[in-house]
Amino acid sequence: MSKQRLVVIGGDAGGMSAAAQARRLDEELEIVVLEQGRDTSYSACGIPYWIGGLVDSREDLVARTPAEHRERGLVVHTCTRATGIDLEAGRVTSHDGRTFDYDTLLVATGGRPTRPPIDGLDAPGVFGVHRLDDGDAIRAWIADLPAGAPAVVMGGGYIGLEMAEMLQTRGLDVTVVLADPLPMGLLDADMGERVCAAMREQGMTVHTDQAVREVLLDDAGTARGVRTDQGSYEARVVVLGLGMGPEARLAADAGLGIGVTGGIDVDATMRSRTHDNAFAAGDCVQTYHRLTGEPAHVALGTHANKQGRVAGSVIAGRPARFAGVLGTALTKVGGLEIGRTGLCTTQAEAAGFAFRHETIEATTRAGYYPGAEDLAVKLIAEEGSGRLLGAQVVGGAGAGKRIDVLATAIWAGMTADELAGSDISYAPPFSPTYDAVSVAARVVSRTERG
Amino acid sequence: MSKQRLVVIGGDAGGMSAAAQARRLDEELEIVVLEQGRDTSYSACGIPYWIGGLVDSREDLVARTPAEHRERGLVVHTCTRATGIDLEAGRVTSHDGRTFDYDTLLVATGGRPTRPPIDGLDAPGVFGVHRLDDGDAIRAWIADLPAGAPAVVMGGGYIGLEMAEMLQTRGLDVTVVLADPLPMGLLDADMGERVCAAMREQGMTVHTDQAVREVLLDDAGTARGVRTDQGSYEARVVVLGLGMGPEARLAADAGLGIGVTGGIDVDATMRSRTHDNAFAAGDCVQTYHRLTGEPAHVALGTHANKQGRVAGSVIAGRPARFAGVLGTALTKVGGLEIGRTGLCTTQAEAAGFAFRHETIEATTRAGYYPGAEDLAVKLIAEEGSGRLLGAQVVGGAGAGKRIDVLATAIWAGMTADELAGSDISYAPPFSPTYDAVSVAARVVSRTERG
Repeated sequence: MSKQRLVVIGGDAGGMSAAAQARRLDEELEIVVLEQGRDTSYSACGIPYWIGGLVDSREDLVARTPAEHRERGLVVHTCTRATGIDLEAGRVTSHDGRTFDYDTLLVATGGRPTRPPIDGLDAPGVFGVHRLDDGDAIRAWIADLPAGAPAVVMGGGYIGLEMAEMLQTRGLDVTVVLADPLPMGLLDADMGERVCAAMREQGMTVHTDQAVREVLLDDAGTARGVRTDQGSYEARVVVLGLGMGPEARLAADAGLGIGVTGGIDVDATMRSRTHDNAFAAGDCVQTYHRLTGEPAHVALGTHANKQGRVAGSVIAGRPARFAGVLGTALTKVGGLEIGRTGLCTTQAEAAGFAFRHETIEATTRAGYYPGAEDLAVKLIAEEGSGRLLGAQVVGGAGAGKRIDVLATAIWAGMTADELAGSDISYAPPFSPTYDAVSVAARVVSRTERG
Repeated sequence: MSKQRLVVIGGDAGGMSAAAQARRLDEELEIVVLEQGRDTSYSACGIPYWIGGLVDSREDLVARTPAEHRERGLVVHTCTRATGIDLEAGRVTSHDGRTFDYDTLLVATGGRPTRPPIDGLDAPGVFGVHRLDDGDAIRAWIADLPAGAPAVVMGGGYIGLEMAEMLQTRGLDVTVVLADPLPMGLLDADMGERVCAAMREQGMTVHTDQAVREVLLDDAGTARGVRTDQGSYEARVVVLGLGMGPEARLAADAGLGIGVTGGIDVDATMRSRTHDNAFAAGDCVQTYHRLTGEPAHVALGTHANKQGRVAGSVIAGRPARFAGVLGTALTKVGGLEIGRTGLCTTQAEAAGFAFRHETIEATTRAGYYPGAEDLAVKLIAEEGSGRLLGAQVVGGAGAGKRIDVLATAIWAGMTADELAGSDISYAPPFSPTYDAVSVAARVVSRTERG
């Protein structure tokens, strides 16, 4: 058999995990990676913290440089943007006219920040938070702003919240403008309200239910604020945190099947459902929700890494499957930690589940132990079976990571009653006698029982 | 039906949970609680932190006073020590000669601190850490000691470790003397060594593999040190932290069946296997290990609370079962958090499992995020099936609570591979892209695969 070649489009989490895994399992395979930027394997999730000054340098966010990948036997072309795929010929073309023939293709083109159809988004002073270059640009821009200068963050998803916190850390006067009634859209309203209240307590201005109509510009064409359907807000910097869709245009143009979410349509082995020798991984793919089986798109580095690893295994001939997502997410805004997993009530309703839900209040440590902070845990369980469907956690330091216990319980198909009976740890510096997770499970299981 | 009477012996976690639950479900039942001390529903686990000054007052450790229980319709006799049970007549006798007839009995006599058979243990200056009165006594005693006075802690279980830390917090020069080769006996040696090293780094002297032969006394008969088989160590205060067995003497004397662990032999409904109208809950009972089905004794407030609740439910006519224990435990010594659950390798071996294990090193947050601390996660999985059998976590702030994810996964019967694929949260302030839990699961599942 002649030497096979794998071409990978995109050198971040999904692409590089696939390439590395394929390399590990198949020493013979020729692996060529095309990356449009100059970095590989960087942490997009860390960009807000670098902007906020909690992380020192751009290099800190790069897990593995192109040189390091090359040392491990990958061919990496940086600053090489793939502009076309010929699925029939098995060939990728780059912006500079080079062509790369492949036996197997892996598309890992990542996500595309959501941009509303309004004027002024391209003006100086308006930034997305997507690539490391965005981080550099925002850092340079805000370095020149005086303390207390107004900043507007559009959107209240996790990037929005993190940017709001970090801009505040940088001394700016932060206004968050949401089109939705509350931040963190995949939280239920009762939990979202806690987040909103905490943001205001931390000195942010939060405008909800307001669609931004345009970015206002000064005479030089630089952003000077935003105008919504209800008012205008001054800004020396405008940051977009409106979420991330799949960047699947290149794949779609080539004729690779695209799913209902707009992501590349792959099976659980990350293989294209329309082209056998094409795979995809990361923020550009459509995956599926573990509880509903429905198509889902979730942009997150962890999934990208896992999907890449699955694709790389399968490409190298070892069976592997991506097991779906629960939509687990965790973030913080100031002192408030926010976690969610599974279905929120709206999603459970849409998915046709009959369910119950309960929210309990507790503390992160024994009430008498120093540093005990409030937290609220919401659990959603299927009526009848008691199977856990979703969970949300909002609270002080130590609250957020509890979402992992709930994600694991939901992943395993546990009922509320089973979780309530399980052997969760207890020690005063870490929880009350009953951890909040156990209390919530017990309460929702009691409701269950009638 | 005439009014039924439940007599509860012991007014802490197990007894009071049972009484409260029975009250909740059965308004008619007469409930009489006999408690030998003056407190009810107190947190024994909080005593070290009260001694250390992190908790202000004795009252902070009392979750519910006798008066509060009485308001809820319980008859509570404090300072009333049960001295005899007549199982045939259905009658409890107290130290002062009173008798209490019952239709149903609940024994919740708690635990008994392990005391080695050596001289001097009853001398002034030697303390157990069991009841609130012990806390008062230690606080008063150490208040008179000069800064830097030597203290010896016997035992390296969690009470031993917590007391060592708290006495150090109080300015004493702490020596920990262990009969075992390492602290935290239910950790494997590689993990126990990390704990031992951390204790020494924190300025404690740790002597391992040394059996204490006697407590040395001064001319006034007060403790002045301990002598082991290898040396003598000065001490102005000696604290016992040698673990806790079941306090089942009263039950045994009455003829209630006792199990091989020395705990009262009950079924999963917390009913005595030998006497139908007798129940028991808390540190005095023998329970069972969820993975092996074998009898187990674990003294912990959480189990006591749950067992009490089960007993109370069953007594009031509602079906309930206690689902067993994994031996989940969590503690800290200085900055080091220590968690364990399920079987350690010694236990897995003894139980006849063929297993694999892996220990991985990671950080509590993304490596570039401020405050990222080292942690190690050890996972033990059954050979062949890949089912998780045990887990241990040792590391800096934020490490310990990860044991709950692992306890939940083990409880649910997950395999390492399933846990590796599960949707655990990711955000830079909380974990690297792959949480340590996921990394450990993946590594042990990879070994699994060969």
